Amino acid sequence: MWGGRFAGGPSAVMREINASIGVDKRLWREDIAASRAHADMLRRQGILSEADARAIDEGLNAVGLEIGEGKLHEDAALEDIHMHVEHRLGELIGEPAGRLHTARSRNDQVATDFRLFVRNCIDEAVEGIDALEAVLLDRAEEHADTVMPGFTHLQSGQPVTLGHHLLAYREMMVRNRSRFTDARARMNESPLGSAALAGTGFPLDRDVTASSLDFDRPTANSIDAVSDRDFVVDYLHAAALTSVHLSRLAEEIVLWASQPFGFVTLPDAWSTGSSIMPNKRNPDAAELVRGHAGRIIGDLVALLVILKGLPLAYSKDLQDDKPPLFDAHDLLALSLAAMAGMVADLTFLPERMRAVAAAGHATATDLADWLVSDAGVPFREAHHIAGRAVAVAEAAGKPLDQLTLGELQAVDPRIVDSAIPRLSVESSVAARTSAGGTAPAKVREAIAAARAAIAKRG
Amino acid sequence: MWGGRFAGGPSAVMREINASIGVDKRLWREDIAASRAHADMLRRQGILSEADARAIDEGLNAVGLEIGEGKLHEDAALEDIHMHVEHRLGELIGEPAGRLHTARSRNDQVATDFRLFVRNCIDEAVEGIDALEAVLLDRAEEHADTVMPGFTHLQSGQPVTLGHHLLAYREMMVRNRSRFTDARARMNESPLGSAALAGTGFPLDRDVTASSLDFDRPTANSIDAVSDRDFVVDYLHAAALTSVHLSRLAEEIVLWASQPFGFVTLPDAWSTGSSIMPNKRNPDAAELVRGHAGRIIGDLVALLVILKGLPLAYSKDLQDDKPPLFDAHDLLALSLAAMAGMVADLTFLPERMRAVAAAGHATATDLADWLVSDAGVPFREAHHIAGRAVAVAEAAGKPLDQLTLGELQAVDPRIVDSAIPRLSVESSVAARTSAGGTAPAKVREAIAAARAAIAKRG
Amino acid sequence: MWGGRFAGGPSAVMREINASIGVDKRLWREDIAASRAHADMLRRQGILSEADARAIDEGLNAVGLEIGEGKLHEDAALEDIHMHVEHRLGELIGEPAGRLHTARSRNDQVATDFRLFVRNCIDEAVEGIDALEAVLLDRAEEHADTVMPGFTHLQSGQPVTLGHHLLAYREMMVRNRSRFTDARARMNESPLGSAALAGTGFPLDRDVTASSLDFDRPTANSIDAVSDRDFVVDYLHAAALTSVHLSRLAEEIVLWASQPFGFVTLPDAWSTGSSIMPNKRNPDAAELVRGHAGRIIGDLVALLVILKGLPLAYSKDLQDDKPPLFDAHDLLALSLAAMAGMVADLTFLPERMRAVAAAGHATATDLADWLVSDAGVPFREAHHIAGRAVAVAEAAGKPLDQLTLGELQAVDPRIVDSAIPRLSVESSVAARTSAGGTAPAKVREAIAAARAAIAKRG
Amino acid sequence: MWGGRFAGGPSAVMREINASIGVDKRLWREDIAASRAHADMLRRQGILSEADARAIDEGLNAVGLEIGEGKLHEDAALEDIHMHVEHRLGELIGEPAGRLHTARSRNDQVATDFRLFVRNCIDEAVEGIDALEAVLLDRAEEHADTVMPGFTHLQSGQPVTLGHHLLAYREMMVRNRSRFTDARARMNESPLGSAALAGTGFPLDRDVTASSLDFDRPTANSIDAVSDRDFVVDYLHAAALTSVHLSRLAEEIVLWASQPFGFVTLPDAWSTGSSIMPNKRNPDAAELVRGHAGRIIGDLVALLVILKGLPLAYSKDLQDDKPPLFDAHDLLALSLAAMAGMVADLTFLPERMRAVAAAGHATATDLADWLVSDAGVPFREAHHIAGRAVAVAEAAGKPLDQLTLGELQAVDPRIVDSAIPRLSVESSVAARTSAGGTAPAKVREAIAAARAAIAKRG
Repeated sequence: MWGGRFAGGPSAVMREINASIGVDKRLWREDIAASRAHADMLRRQGILSEADARAIDEGLNAVGLEIGEGKLHEDAALEDIHMHVEHRLGELIGEPAGRLHTARSRNDQVATDFRLFVRNCIDEAVEGIDALEAVLLDRAEEHADTVMPGFTHLQSGQPVTLGHHLLAYREMMVRNRSRFTDARARMNESPLGSAALAGTGFPLDRDVTASSLDFDRPTANSIDAVSDRDFVVDYLHAAALTSVHLSRLAEEIVLWASQPFGFVTLPDAWSTGSSIMPNKRNPDAAELVRGHAGRIIGDLVALLVILKGLPLAYSKDLQDDKPPLFDAHDLLALSLAAMAGMVADLTFLPERMRAVAAAGHATATDLADWLVSDAGVPFREAHHIAGRAVAVAEAAGKPLDQLTLGELQAVDPRIVDSAIPRLSVESSVAARTSAGGTAPAKVREAIAAARAAIAKRG
Repeated sequence: MWGGRFAGGPSAVMREINASIGVDKRLWREDIAASRAHADMLRRQGILSEADARAIDEGLNAVGLEIGEGKLHEDAALEDIHMHVEHRLGELIGEPAGRLHTARSRNDQVATDFRLFVRNCIDEAVEGIDALEAVLLDRAEEHADTVMPGFTHLQSGQPVTLGHHLLAYREMMVRNRSRFTDARARMNESPLGSAALAGTGFPLDRDVTASSLDFDRPTANSIDAVSDRDFVVDYLHAAALTSVHLSRLAEEIVLWASQPFGFVTLPDAWSTGSSIMPNKRNPDAAELVRGHAGRIIGDLVALLVILKGLPLAYSKDLQDDKPPLFDAHDLLALSLAAMAGMVADLTFLPERMRAVAAAGHATATDLADWLVSDAGVPFREAHHIAGRAVAVAEAAGKPLDQLTLGELQAVDPRIVDSAIPRLSVESSVAARTSAGGTAPAKVREAIAAARAAIAKRG
Repeated sequence: MWGGRFAGGPSAVMREINASIGVDKRLWREDIAASRAHADMLRRQGILSEADARAIDEGLNAVGLEIGEGKLHEDAALEDIHMHVEHRLGELIGEPAGRLHTARSRNDQVATDFRLFVRNCIDEAVEGIDALEAVLLDRAEEHADTVMPGFTHLQSGQPVTLGHHLLAYREMMVRNRSRFTDARARMNESPLGSAALAGTGFPLDRDVTASSLDFDRPTANSIDAVSDRDFVVDYLHAAALTSVHLSRLAEEIVLWASQPFGFVTLPDAWSTGSSIMPNKRNPDAAELVRGHAGRIIGDLVALLVILKGLPLAYSKDLQDDKPPLFDAHDLLALSLAAMAGMVADLTFLPERMRAVAAAGHATATDLADWLVSDAGVPFREAHHIAGRAVAVAEAAGKPLDQLTLGELQAVDPRIVDSAIPRLSVESSVAARTSAGGTAPAKVREAIAAARAAIAKRG
Repeated sequence: MWGGRFAGGPSAVMREINASIGVDKRLWREDIAASRAHADMLRRQGILSEADARAIDEGLNAVGLEIGEGKLHEDAALEDIHMHVEHRLGELIGEPAGRLHTARSRNDQVATDFRLFVRNCIDEAVEGIDALEAVLLDRAEEHADTVMPGFTHLQSGQPVTLGHHLLAYREMMVRNRSRFTDARARMNESPLGSAALAGTGFPLDRDVTASSLDFDRPTANSIDAVSDRDFVVDYLHAAALTSVHLSRLAEEIVLWASQPFGFVTLPDAWSTGSSIMPNKRNPDAAELVRGHAGRIIGDLVALLVILKGLPLAYSKDLQDDKPPLFDAHDLLALSLAAMAGMVADLTFLPERMRAVAAAGHATATDLADWLVSDAGVPFREAHHIAGRAVAVAEAAGKPLDQLTLGELQAVDPRIVDSAIPRLSVESSVAARTSAGGTAPAKVREAIAAARAAIAKRG
């Protein structure tokens, strides 16, 4: 390929470290699509003859069919997918194959192929997010009234509704979606025609190749175009944060399925057993989703480290961009699918959830709020009074809402009858009607708003 | 603050690990602004009396003036800036201070304060980027015609123009700008009114506080609102990638200033010497910018790790969100300013740059291109011929463009007179007029387009 | 300091980015100690006169006393602690101060100071680990017989003893200890005398300075000595892994203190409340320990990224080594102390632990083991039979060890009377007497062995 | 495998996310070795009959031969390599296969297999390091006298010898070696016999299996043994730091091979060309080594993140430990081999190196040192004088060592004739005879000491 100046060939270790075909063969579809677009543009501009262009196009099509059938013959001497495709094209069509690389370098070629691939990863991620969002909305609707303990610091704090809790994850997914679509808008530019780094003197029409590959426009600077891997980092950032959100939900599923919680049961389809303990029913998928977040964070780190301190323009270090991206994509796709499946199939156990919510004096805030709103007590004082009521309840070994009026008045005489009904968990959640609050009515509003927003996405 | 239920106080180590005032005091402006907005809304909704609201507002104003004058008295027993402000307010105005925290929790309070702070960090980052962009455009315009070697793999590849090279960094900065503005659009929502995690039963108007704090809208889900730190991660991602770009430019400045390159001289204002070697003139600022990228990447990692696997809603781990953010912000601000200053003040040495560009047979591609366009040779063959010409030039110990026509024709007889003038570096860069290419004319077009785009930003 | 060649001074931004005094002032003790050792060696070698050496030594002592009293006057123009000390020395003793830097560069000076500091951090970490180990052993001994559920996948798997569980953390701490001591042995070499990077022509005796600073030997290569920061990375690795272990224990404390678990209560000394929810008792210290692990991992990443790709020898990027180290040290020290305090003060609730251990059919493995050992059934088959017994128990709504012999024989007729007593949790843990197993007797053995090993450490 | 309690099978996504056979099949040798050791111990302890044990041993041997011949039939339903081996064993020998898993869980099985694998990775890393060390020593010896510029801040600082420079990397490799051997000593313990997490009631002899697998001893705590992945983190730490060192050397090779430096030429065996630029000769292998460091750092991060916050004992997240380890191992092995090959084959260009060393007034320190040692000038003043001499030389456009005595005396009259010969680069390096210094004589001493140390390793 670049033999004119070279006398000797690479050493064995050099060949091994340099060959990327084992990894970048995943770009074969993109490589063929971009080469066809390039050749067709060369034809339109009169740089390739009609006959050569036709031979190239048909040849590339044939190469694609072969690879699609698993017939790629990997050869480390041909280094990467780009040379494999071009070499096979040469075998199939002869001399015109040598004209395909006119006004092109592997630098802009690989940048183009990889952008196409990452763009597709973005689209797949959005699909996976949308599917999970739909499941979250369905389960939230089903459990708009289900009371569960709302934890902060993993301490039961205030009762909330399960629907509301699930919608929190929906909010995260909406943000993740926008991260991916923002990244897509930023990266959807065609590097093709940037050549090695300086552009070319051939009379290209870069708008044509950009448009035929569904890019919004050509990149604006050829040096940047061949050395830019921001689009990979943006993808990995969005993937890492999405995976972190999934890991939070996974952590909750692991907790909820644990015997002491007992908030959910996992169906057999999402459980595994133990090779030694016949009693086990393990939430492996949730744990793997949690673990995968660690690997995707590692992938993001790898890319940032690789790029840091690299002078312009292309350096071979950039070849290390693909394994982290492929890894993150595969893990994220599986994590999103697994999480959508698990959330859809989980059996929630509302009685146990309610029982835990009702323990722990979780409506103490409601007592403080009543003191403020109905008795005019400043909040700080009301908070203190409610705290003393909790201490009394704890000493008496019963939940706060089981204290008698007498017991409450012993704490503070301003407490009257009307405060008592405020202390049930149902009353507590129903009261929280502030915008974005946990009241069942607000949960239903939020679901309706979400569905309307989805419908508008078209 | 939360003493009603508690008999004993914290241990000394507990107090030390728990106190965050040494760090979060940087949020004092935001805390006071958000508290004033909250109190005013409580008044409008009839939850606070006019008199109490006025006392609180004037009191908060007074506290702010005190802190602005450096009179914050730090006390680990008061834990954080939020309690310091409220406690001092109590000292100043007495009982009404106890009513400020009505319908609010530290969970939504800190989320609000921190969002305000990060929003400001974003705005500062955009300003710093814009300032660097302006410098890059000015220096690029000045050097639109200056020829330098275009490197790939740090090997001289093709001549490029310095203006074009600098514009590559302008492209990166434009993308960084959009990362920050995308992040801002996504995060500009008000958590205030989410209370502990469930919302509240008080008749708040969250639109009012959102609007008075210049948020676009209230957050949609209270559980998410108090446990979400995505906005920090988005900031850190944009900061990390910006710092990586700056580190690439810093690496180039370090290289260019090195004796073997000699492409630039750093003025005294950006140089340091050595405590032992009197001859030294070190590019410390560039090296620090490069090092800072490492720390900002570390900050991003810290946040992702902290969030990973946390169940909802708020957990105290989230208190560790601030040191990485503050660190990244300070390092990024300084890095952007230093880089703008260095780029503005660097003396480029065009003769040395041109000399290196002309060595190394960097116009071999032009010979290959000529063979394709003027002699109809397929590119792969043309590439091989040019490679052999390079080998001949190397053996003869002279640059490619000094080979005689005879020497060139000995390599391939199809080479004729008209090929020779194509082999000068000036001719090479002038030829690269493809969109985004390095030709001086294209560089000037790109600068004009950039300036028009900036003007439109308004 | 390095003015001879310089006409102009640094710009304001340059001064700000370059000054490190705000950070490296923490090295003042080490700087003075190393300077005194250096001056004394110069005297012994006849490079400094006795009078000059005495003036320098007394002067450095005076500077140290001043700084110890908080009288360091920070001045960005003096850049770092090294110049501050030398400058103040000059103010105090005049001309001889100018002779201190003979045969020394800031490069070897900072490398020496920082090694001394990190060596001390290692010693502190070992102390903190030993203190935690002692607490773990004490609590393990107290609870050698206490039965708790042994979780895998956070599913109750087999009963274990709490003492055994705590000893698992003791094992991690022993490994961490060896990481720190291995790192110490590797790093305890003196860079002093390496000068800028090449060594020096002055007739130094590097063994003397090494020995007077308690280093084992001088470093072997001067270029390596000034550019090596491995010792920081080794420290950060050991700190990160220790913090990860602490975060695992912290996670367990958070879980155990949660209402659904209820395995422990945290005393007031280690709890905090809520600003809004009077009922809360939060395990903030445990959560912060967990969060701190994220930051220490970020610190480790920062260092690795900073070093990656740096050419030899010293580059200014290395100045960014200190903030991550200081951060990690402070967080680790606090985390170790907090964890030792919490483990010492936790109230375990053995009845609740035993109740959870007895639920969940956690002795199903014992049934399978009985089938193998007493009935000759192959393990795979025995595992399947026990699994069916669990399904029967689950259907019957009672724990496995409450099934009647009839019910068990309906599953498999080979089960006889003697199997039943094996199914209690006490019997289960008592049976596990394999080396390193959970039986109370083995726990006591392990504690005795640990105490013997500690005694041998001297 | 664990079907007794399960009615339904896993969903398709569950099967896909859960199956690890595609990754962990690399453990087949270790799995078979550990199973044979386990079965043999069971036989010795009378837990397995002689006949069953013989069948198992011969069967496992047969399975190993099959897999070695590439005949592993991957089946996602069998999840991992452990089940594949046991399942195939069952096909080959029938019922006795069901007895192999007696007193064992996959938890201790996988921990054992993976330790064996990582131990082997350590041994391979040490071999690779030793091979690189040998090459560094050979090239250092060859170039003990070769003068090159010694850079700090990538500014020419003082002349050094190339041999000395290469020995700096030898020092790093010696430290890396000790990191790996320390890690090996710490991890070489056998988890086998820890069972699920609690140990077992079968009368095992864990010393026997430990010894037959060349472990130093059994692990001390069964809960720790199945949840510990420290040994992976220790490996990744050592690998990451080694790769960072390699990346520093790689950076230097890239710089040295760049036209402006021209310190080395890369032979064809370690160069690649360009698909577009016929003149290129790229140091791809060095760049890939640099890039690989980024990925190995990412692998280390992944593991730390995965472990952080995991409660005891085994969780499925731990299955994500293998891909980062395999990735790091493969990249490190290739990087070490490539670097040894490149260093061995590089052609150094001493004339160019000397020329750059002689430019840049790099002996200014020697002038300052002369002023101190021969004229009694305090170092700070001497440094200032030498700085002014540099300024004079710079203004005169000639190197410092070409200034006339008159020119020097105009700077400071104390400079006399004898100072001049000190200013040649050869004189400068020869003078630096302090321990660990750059003088050729010291370099030869260092090489001799290194060779003696290697011989002692046995």
